[in-house]
Formats: sequence, C-alpha cells, structure tokens
Amino acid sequence: MADAEKKAVVEEIKKQGEIVRKLKAEKADKEKIAEEVAKLLELKAQIGDVGTNQKFILKTPKGTRDYNPKQMAIREGVFKTIVDSFKRHGAETLDTPVFELKETLTGKYGEDSKLIYDLKDQGGELLSLRYDLTVPFARYLAMNKINRIKRYHIAKVYRRDNPAMTRGRYREFYQCDFDIAGQYDPMIPDAECVKIVHEILTNLGLGDFVIKVNHREILDGMFEVCGVPADKFRTICSSVDKLDKTFWEDVREEMIEEKGLDPATADNIGQYVKMNGGLELVEQLLQDPLLPTSKAAKQGLEGMRTLLKYCQIFGVLDKVSFDLSLARGLDYYTGVIYEAVLKGSEMLPTKTGEQVGVGSVAGGGRYDGLVGMFDPKGKQVPCVGVSIGIERVFSIMEAKAQAKAEKIRTTETDVLVASGQRDMLEERLKLCTELWDAGIKAEMIYKKNPKMLNQFQLAETTGIPLIAVIGEAELKNGTVTLRNMETRAEEQIPRADLISVIKERCRQISSS
Amino acid sequence: MADAEKKAVVEEIKKQGEIVRKLKAEKADKEKIAEEVAKLLELKAQIGDVGTNQKFILKTPKGTRDYNPKQMAIREGVFKTIVDSFKRHGAETLDTPVFELKETLTGKYGEDSKLIYDLKDQGGELLSLRYDLTVPFARYLAMNKINRIKRYHIAKVYRRDNPAMTRGRYREFYQCDFDIAGQYDPMIPDAECVKIVHEILTNLGLGDFVIKVNHREILDGMFEVCGVPADKFRTICSSVDKLDKTFWEDVREEMIEEKGLDPATADNIGQYVKMNGGLELVEQLLQDPLLPTSKAAKQGLEGMRTLLKYCQIFGVLDKVSFDLSLARGLDYYTGVIYEAVLKGSEMLPTKTGEQVGVGSVAGGGRYDGLVGMFDPKGKQVPCVGVSIGIERVFSIMEAKAQAKAEKIRTTETDVLVASGQRDMLEERLKLCTELWDAGIKAEMIYKKNPKMLNQFQLAETTGIPLIAVIGEAELKNGTVTLRNMETRAEEQIPRADLISVIKERCRQISSS
Repeated sequence: MADAEKKAVVEEIKKQGEIVRKLKAEKADKEKIAEEVAKLLELKAQIGDVGTNQKFILKTPKGTRDYNPKQMAIREGVFKTIVDSFKRHGAETLDTPVFELKETLTGKYGEDSKLIYDLKDQGGELLSLRYDLTVPFARYLAMNKINRIKRYHIAKVYRRDNPAMTRGRYREFYQCDFDIAGQYDPMIPDAECVKIVHEILTNLGLGDFVIKVNHREILDGMFEVCGVPADKFRTICSSVDKLDKTFWEDVREEMIEEKGLDPATADNIGQYVKMNGGLELVEQLLQDPLLPTSKAAKQGLEGMRTLLKYCQIFGVLDKVSFDLSLARGLDYYTGVIYEAVLKGSEMLPTKTGEQVGVGSVAGGGRYDGLVGMFDPKGKQVPCVGVSIGIERVFSIMEAKAQAKAEKIRTTETDVLVASGQRDMLEERLKLCTELWDAGIKAEMIYKKNPKMLNQFQLAETTGIPLIAVIGEAELKNGTVTLRNMETRAEEQIPRADLISVIKERCRQISSS
Repeated sequence: MADAEKKAVVEEIKKQGEIVRKLKAEKADKEKIAEEVAKLLELKAQIGDVGTNQKFILKTPKGTRDYNPKQMAIREGVFKTIVDSFKRHGAETLDTPVFELKETLTGKYGEDSKLIYDLKDQGGELLSLRYDLTVPFARYLAMNKINRIKRYHIAKVYRRDNPAMTRGRYREFYQCDFDIAGQYDPMIPDAECVKIVHEILTNLGLGDFVIKVNHREILDGMFEVCGVPADKFRTICSSVDKLDKTFWEDVREEMIEEKGLDPATADNIGQYVKMNGGLELVEQLLQDPLLPTSKAAKQGLEGMRTLLKYCQIFGVLDKVSFDLSLARGLDYYTGVIYEAVLKGSEMLPTKTGEQVGVGSVAGGGRYDGLVGMFDPKGKQVPCVGVSIGIERVFSIMEAKAQAKAEKIRTTETDVLVASGQRDMLEERLKLCTELWDAGIKAEMIYKKNPKMLNQFQLAETTGIPLIAVIGEAELKNGTVTLRNMETRAEEQIPRADLISVIKERCRQISSS
C-alpha cells in the first residue's frame, strides 16, 4: 500500500474510531455498535493493524439471527400447523437450491432487483441467492416441463433490505409458499388459496384477521378509465401499493408531483381506492357508469364475483374484503391478488416496551406469465399461490410466549437415568442402553459420580417427567425406582417390567 | 469494448462453439453440455450478441439439484429416522444463518478454505456461505456464552468442490450434526456419539457397516515415535487420511517424495497404520515397545480403552473398529475421531448402470479448542460430535427405491371428492369444505364438469385410497357414495355420519 493510501486509511480509522466512541457514550443499540466496530476493524486490517489480542466481532451478519432452542420449538410448532394445512389440501413438496444462476432472477422483480444478494465471481457461473420461492418454482416447472402441480415449499429467502428485526423484517427469512399450477376453470384454485390462508391464520390463533383481495385487471381498468397513461400503470400501481402505510393525501401528492399525473386523474383514482366491501361492492361497481366501460375491469369484476361466491361456499367470506386499494408491487401478477392482515394486533408490546407492527402476514396472487418467461417456446403454465409471512408470525408467537412467561420444553426426554450412589456409572449406561433400544427417550448426566440434587435439578429445569433411580438396593432386588417429577410419587418397578411401565406412565402424563 | 478485445472474445466464442459441437456430437453428459453452452452464451453476451429468441439456460447451478416430490418423500423419511434418534438422546435443536461473517470462517479449515463460497461485496459486511455446521455452532456457543448443550442441527452447507452427483457429492448438501458441548468425565459423551451413529445406520437399514475410531493423540504420538518432525504432523496426517482411497505404496511415496519424509520414518508409520481391531489391539499397543514411550500416545490409548469399554456397554462394540489409519483432514479435532463406512455396498448400481461408491456415511470427533478461538478471553468449551453424510444416504435410498420400482406417495390425501354428473361443482366445493373443516385431507379436480374417469385416474395415480361421490341421487337421499379404491367396495353413507365413517376407514386402511 502506498504511503498516501495508508495515510488516507489512518484518517478513516480516526473518524471511524470517533463514531464508535460516540455510539458507546450514547449507549446506542448494541447491534449498531457492533456493526461500526466491525467497520473499524476492517479498516485496521487494511493497514495490517490487527492487534495480537484482537478477536473478531462475535455476531451474525446484519439482518440475520440465530434461532435458539426455544425459538426452534416455536418455529417447529408453527411449521407443523402450516404444513398440516397444506397437506390437508393435497399438496406435494419440493426443494430448490439456495442460489440460482444470476440470469434466472434477472428481470423478475422490477425495482426490487437491487435487493438481490450476488455471490462473488470465483470462476464458473454467476450466482445469486434466491429472492423468493416463486421464481425458482417457475424455473423448476419450465425445466421439468411440468404443467400441473400443487406444491408447497418452506425455505429461506434473501433480501438486502433495511432490516427491522423487532418487526420481524430480516435479510434472511422463511417463506411458506403454496401454489397451484395448471389450466383449470376460473377462480376454483384461486378461492382454495383464500381458504388455506383462512385455515392457517385461524389455526395459528393469532387473533382476528382480514384477507384483502383485488384483481390486476380491475386495477388496470380503473387506471384506464381514470385517465392514467398506459405506460404509467405500473408506477402508479406502486403508489397505490403504499396506501396500507400512507395517507391518501401523501400518495396523491406522489402521483402528481413525482409521477406527473394530472390532479383530476389522481382524484378519480382516489374515489375508487377508498372502496372496500363484499359481493355488494362487486355488484355496485358492475353498475358503475365508468368502471365497466373498461373491458379489463368488467372481466376482473366478474372474476371477483365468482371468487367471492366460492369463498362463501368455503365458509370464509366473512373474513374476505374486496379492497380496491390493494395493489402489491411485484411485476409478475396477472389476476387475483391477496393480502392478509391481522386486525387490532398491529401493535404488540415487546419486552423492551417497543411496539411491534406486524402488518401483512400473507400475500400472493395469480401469475400466469411467469413460467412462459423460462420456457424455450414461451409455453405458459397458469399459476396461483400464497406465501405465509412466517417471520412476522414468529415475532408474534415469541412475544406472546414471553408475555405469558410460558415454559417451553426444548427436548422431549421422558426419563432421566440417575443414581445417588458412587460407582454407578456403568449401571446407568446399561439402563440408558435398555431404554434407548426400546425406543424410549432417555438421558443421563455425563459424570462418573453426579450428585443426586444435580440430577433432580436437571430434570426439573428441562421438564423431564420421570426419573429412573438405581443403586445398590435396586440392583440387589432387580428393580428400579421410578419417580414422577410432578406428583413426586415413587414406585419400585421390577426391571423386567420397566419398559412397559415407563411407556404406560408416558401415555398417562401426555394425556393429562 | 475496444476492437482488439472484441476480436479476442470472438475468437474465444469460436473455440467455445467447437467445444459445444464436439460434446453434442459425442452425446456427452447433459450437465456437461449445459455448462459449456452457458459459457458460450456468457461470451456472446460480452459482445452484445444475445440473440432475440435466445432464452437462457434452464438449469440449477453446477453441483446443485432440485428435489422433486418423490425425492422429498424419501428425504423426509430419512430425516425423521435421524431426528427421532437425536431426540431419543435428549438433544435440542437450533439454527444459524446460511452465511456468516467471512472472518468467522477464516483459519478454520486449513487447505480446504479455498472451497468456501464468498458473497459479492455489495457494500457492508463481507460474507461467506457456511462450509459446515460445526464452526457456526462454536461461534453460537461463544457468542451466547453457553458452556453446556446437547444439540442437533440439520441444514445445508456449501463447498466449491468438484461435484460427483451420482456419488452423492454436491456443492450444496445437507449435514445432520449432533454435538455435545460441556466439561464432562472422559469418553462418556464420546461413546454416546458412537451409539447414535450405530442407532441411525441400523434404523435406516442401509446394510452392514463399520464405525472406525481413532484418536488424535494416538496419531500424534505415532508420528512422534516414528520420527516425524513436529512441524510435519498435520501434513503427514493429511497423507494418512488418503489411505481409505489409496494404496499404502502411493501414500508412502507422497510422504517421501512430496513431503520430504525419511523413508525409514515412512516405513515405521506403515507398520502402525495397517493395524485395526478392538480392545485387544489397545492392550497390544499399550505393551508396544515404542508407541507408549510417547506420553500423548499413552494417554490416547488409555482413552481408547475407556471409549471401547463404554461402547461395549452400549451394545455397539461389534461394529466398532479401532483403526490407526483413520486420520480425518480438518484442523480442529483434538481427541477421538470417527468415521462410519458401509460394508460391501460401496458399489451400488444406478439406472444408468454406473456404479455408486458411497464410502463414508458419517464422521466426526472431539474438538476442544474451537469455541475458544471465538471467545474474547479464549475460554474453552470442550465439544464432541458426529455428522451424518445424508446426501450419500439419499443416493442409496433413491437407488434402492428405483431398483424396487417402489411406488412412493407424494401426497397424503385421504379422499377425492368426485361427481360423474354435470353442474355439481358447488356441491363438490361444499363437501370438500365439510371434510377440510373436520381435519380430513381431501381434494377435488378444479374443473366445473370433470369426467368420472379422470377423477378415478387421479385417485389411482396419486394413491388416494377413498373417493366420495355425490350426484342427484345422493343429494336427494342425503347420502354420499364412499368407494374404497383398493377393494372397489362402495357404501352409501348418510351425510351426517360421513366424517366419522371416513375417519374409521382411514384408520382401517393405514393399519392394514
């Protein structure tokens, strides 16, 4: 490194050092401090000033987190509820690699493409981390010439977005996708997606919710009759998409000031996007003097009528709201679009007293053109699907578990094999072997002569319901002392009966 | 692009074009052809020759694969067997991000570091994809100051290695890790790891296997007494590690020619690495005139005696082989090392008639120094663990399923709701709703008026055991016709009893 360069880095190090000191003095967010310290160390490394005792920063990358065993227990419970529902509706599952060829993702996400993580060019193909599960699904269908499948896919996706971890917004996060591909009669699979979201949100017990639905053709028709130029449909659609977080006045200003829309046109749009309702709104709009003059809008409204009718049969119409302000940003939607929002509980208190805004917990829609973008002959496979925004669900469940101070077991161990006497290690090992070989979940402390108190405490803190105690007396009598941690009842069980008694006790405990 | 540059690229395109044509003429491996075509297209893109109809290559990145629903069904079955075993031994689970700070992985993998995937520097932290689950686990322990945990972690890891997909060697692959961290009495957790590998390989039913064990201290002691200079221990260890794939003569030559070892020293090593056996070998080596003169070797041998004794109590000693040629490459092992190998079935025929060499299906060892590398004060947490090489297991299971032409169900649907009459769509939707709401797994064809034959065929091909048929007659009588696809028996069920009858039939079918 040239002296001038080195001098510049030293200068940067000074500045960075001040930033860190300032943050520490302010007792700023730990995550923030760790990031700035990491930058400082990177700068120092550039001039070889690594320091002999300087260990690196112990953290996960920005916007990511570890799941500890308690969080995993919650996560597995949530996944089970979701997968049960997907399977109840006959879905298969598949998996794709965490990265795709870079070109597979190119041109699918509009402005959001800048959020894609690329891999370093280390020779060979150029790769990117997947941004969602929908594009890899479309690539899979085209590659394997599949024109009909109902599949779910639960996996992590990656976005270089601004993380807001307390709101469940991460750079690495799970998506739980359910999609139906195939040429079918209108709105039947589309309505089943609404049914599934309804089922999952009900079964997760997150409180009251509303599933907003709209249709790209209604949106396009609305823009048409309001006088939006065709080349501005997508960008005006992005503005409308902000209405869930922003007041109409601000969106109107953006449309006029930034996007050059005529104020009268914006006001026309304003009339429509305030509307939401059920079947009666569809009928009202079909009688609207303006909207059905657009062929697209008329078709969209008739589709919406069919969708809501099927939702009624499925018994979910009371939670469905036809909402003209629902737009959704992604380029690839062509028909129905969905978004599910939790009611009331948008703001949940966390342990730090902060408020958690959870917003949308599911979204999706119909994308009939995406598979054709991958097929060499442009062959289309119509698709519709929903994605459960599971990180937000985790945030809510974790906050709830914390609020209730719930005791979550992170293991499933049924029996702790213990002894209060010395030199019983081999006997404990033997007994564990007997239990494991019979399929019973058992543990012991990996010490030669553990104290009885420590063994009791382990069972207590980890929630193990039974302790099997052996000692000289038990060995002589050919028995084991079985203690129920809950009731404190102890019984002497002949060794030959031990397996069947433990299985019986486990059944009793799990059903009580 | 300057003209000279462009000319050079055009020249490259010509050459690459010839490579592709040659491969196609030779009917070479499809994957290989696709790779070379991708290179050709990348070159063409450099000079702007993209072609108007040129769609990109439809493939997954080199060394990766999709899992189709049948492969997923096999994968889920294998995971269940493994997780059941981990839980039976009281393990919790956790998860870490797919990428880590680059520096977290630095200096942990010796020569293999070149195989790490780095992410592109898009501003912010420098990141790398995880190479294994052990280093993230150690980072997690140090970061959270945990000094005692028994955890499993099943997740994908990434290595830019030469893939050999038919042998189950991928660039993206699953590891299933079980580790015990904590200060315990010697060899108790180490022996439990052997027990777990034994349990999993037995329950997976992959055929006979052997679990090789050795000890880093025995290896180091052996090198010491044979006269290997201390600074060559690690590189000579790498040579020994090749003995599972290479003849001793070739390893000897490498030691002498490439690594500059004295021939007499190499021959000394040769005497030892040919040895394998059980407890009797440990006793023999403790009486060896040379080996126990090394303090390390003596300690290692005494540890091995304890390990084998506990393996005997666990009832797994018959599958354990103390093998002095087992070395394992990774730098971080400090004590016992393991490797499980399938016997006889190293060569499995695939559909293409190729032979699948599966080799090692599990490996691991003790690494007492790794967590200390992450702790700011260097505080150690002793750890021992095993990793199940699950991709190889998948390869074997898939080959077996293919050989047996097994019919694998990819959905769990119990009932297909069907009708042979027109205009029954709404009735089918209603019936599906009833079944779903009662928790029954049900499907219907998304058509207004599907043919009865198509509905029967769907049930037949996807293995749905029951069909619930409705039509005018059933609606009038308030019944449903329930058909058992296997026995072809049909029964008229009153609508009010339908749920309970279906649940009963499902129980009967699943237990038959």
